[in-house]
Amino acid sequence: MRRLPLALALSALLPFVALAQAEPAAKGTKYRSAKEIIDAAPDSAWRDLDPANTLYMELPAGRVVIELAPGFAPEHVANIKTMAKGGFWDGTSIYRAQDNFVVQFGDVDADDAAKAKKHPAGTKEKLPAEFTRKGPARFDRLKDKDGWAPQVGFTDGFAVGHDPAKKETWIAHCYGALGAGRNNAPDSSIGAELYVVIGQAPRALDKQLTMVGRVVQGMSLLSATPRGPEPMGFYEDPAQRAPITAIRLASDVPAAERTNLQILRTDSQAFIDATEARRNRKDDFYTIPAGHIDLCNVPLPVRTKK
Amino acid sequence: MRRLPLALALSALLPFVALAQAEPAAKGTKYRSAKEIIDAAPDSAWRDLDPANTLYMELPAGRVVIELAPGFAPEHVANIKTMAKGGFWDGTSIYRAQDNFVVQFGDVDADDAAKAKKHPAGTKEKLPAEFTRKGPARFDRLKDKDGWAPQVGFTDGFAVGHDPAKKETWIAHCYGALGAGRNNAPDSSIGAELYVVIGQAPRALDKQLTMVGRVVQGMSLLSATPRGPEPMGFYEDPAQRAPITAIRLASDVPAAERTNLQILRTDSQAFIDATEARRNRKDDFYTIPAGHIDLCNVPLPVRTKK
Repeated sequence: MRRLPLALALSALLPFVALAQAEPAAKGTKYRSAKEIIDAAPDSAWRDLDPANTLYMELPAGRVVIELAPGFAPEHVANIKTMAKGGFWDGTSIYRAQDNFVVQFGDVDADDAAKAKKHPAGTKEKLPAEFTRKGPARFDRLKDKDGWAPQVGFTDGFAVGHDPAKKETWIAHCYGALGAGRNNAPDSSIGAELYVVIGQAPRALDKQLTMVGRVVQGMSLLSATPRGPEPMGFYEDPAQRAPITAIRLASDVPAAERTNLQILRTDSQAFIDATEARRNRKDDFYTIPAGHIDLCNVPLPVRTKK
Repeated sequence: MRRLPLALALSALLPFVALAQAEPAAKGTKYRSAKEIIDAAPDSAWRDLDPANTLYMELPAGRVVIELAPGFAPEHVANIKTMAKGGFWDGTSIYRAQDNFVVQFGDVDADDAAKAKKHPAGTKEKLPAEFTRKGPARFDRLKDKDGWAPQVGFTDGFAVGHDPAKKETWIAHCYGALGAGRNNAPDSSIGAELYVVIGQAPRALDKQLTMVGRVVQGMSLLSATPRGPEPMGFYEDPAQRAPITAIRLASDVPAAERTNLQILRTDSQAFIDATEARRNRKDDFYTIPAGHIDLCNVPLPVRTKK
């Protein structure tokens, strides 16, 4: 008697079917769940994922769909596109899976000059650090307080921190965020070695690395990767590494083979209302409204394009 | 060149080797990393895990060690001990793994009166909800702000929310927290069906369920469970469910077969200092101190008893 009821009761908390934001929902109207709000959202509330800024990471078990963030890391994203076009990641691996932290992938021999995989023609071997985005950008603020940033919200559909005094915005290290691994030097990343957050948001890393995108579909293909047995989740045994068949830019994949997705706009009324519905849930299961939502608990709804 | 340096640089963020808390570290002294502080902690800073309040969940791949929380849920914990002694979970399964949320385990047929596994003699079939702990309890407060609770910190070594006005304390839904699944009725859990948080802390669930403990070792045996293909992460195909060999109370296991662990006390100076070292990191990798740590980003260090 406790299996399905619990499941149904928690169902409105599904990570990939819900949301949150700044303006309060209309008062006095009947409570609708986030799911009801999203299901009723007009087509205009959805945006197409742009194939020119979408990566397909092909794993034996399926496809991971990644939205790139050229507005935050133009140089890194351009380099990643060059490398994807050149097939750099084809045949590489997920060579690190550290519990409650990150999976990391790319060329496991990148540190060994003798064995390192050659970068495709046109790859830039040196890039500036792109930790924060300066200047004006649309920012849909969450009203909720946050310990890591003066303000939080969404820019270009990414969960971000924002500092109005410094006029800086940065992609937060939420679950599914994609970052560029680096050495100690801030400008030591070029986008060849990448990591995805698979645990509690390690936001102490915010503004310390160049963030290049986020996973929009297929997270469970990464998050359930067996953790590596070596320190920090590395696999010394090559057989344990998870192979990457290919990483391609969606626009380089034939139209018939694409995964056509839409993302709910973070400036849509549906997103704002659904977020409020999550902040203050009213249903048969939840007895106390939280009155709050954390930036990294706000799901960004995805649907297959009709 | 980007593999090990990144790994080493991020190493101080290892989830199971670090910490955080209320009082500031001594000023004017040389910066020490959390790891250095913990490694230098005196034996008196560590407490033994009590075998009478420790569960061993035996999976084919290894042992998950769980610390029970009798101070928060005395009735549920007593029932869980009765069920463990009676072998209730032996041969049951992890029947749900929902990405970025929870794994859930117990008797998959619990809802089917005809097939449900009989509870061991002495199991109470009705318990009160134990969502919050009333009255005085030692509370080691984190100074960091939190959106979900008036105050946060540690009680009995568990990450908790605290409401000084209502004099209530509750275990927060951080990564690794163990809760009792329930139906819509608040008093519908008895501890037979349990869940463990495996993603971004779903703290909207705080104070809505009875929390009975947390995983102190072996989380990756749960978090890397392949996600269930059905809605909410269920597996309809029994072959996909992860089998549970047994769940035993450590005190019922022969001493030679126990996993003897110690936990760093959350009221120790080492814990307080290590937390401060994480809040404001100073090393060759981190260029900006965060000045903050989230309750659910504070690791609770565990070591093998010498």
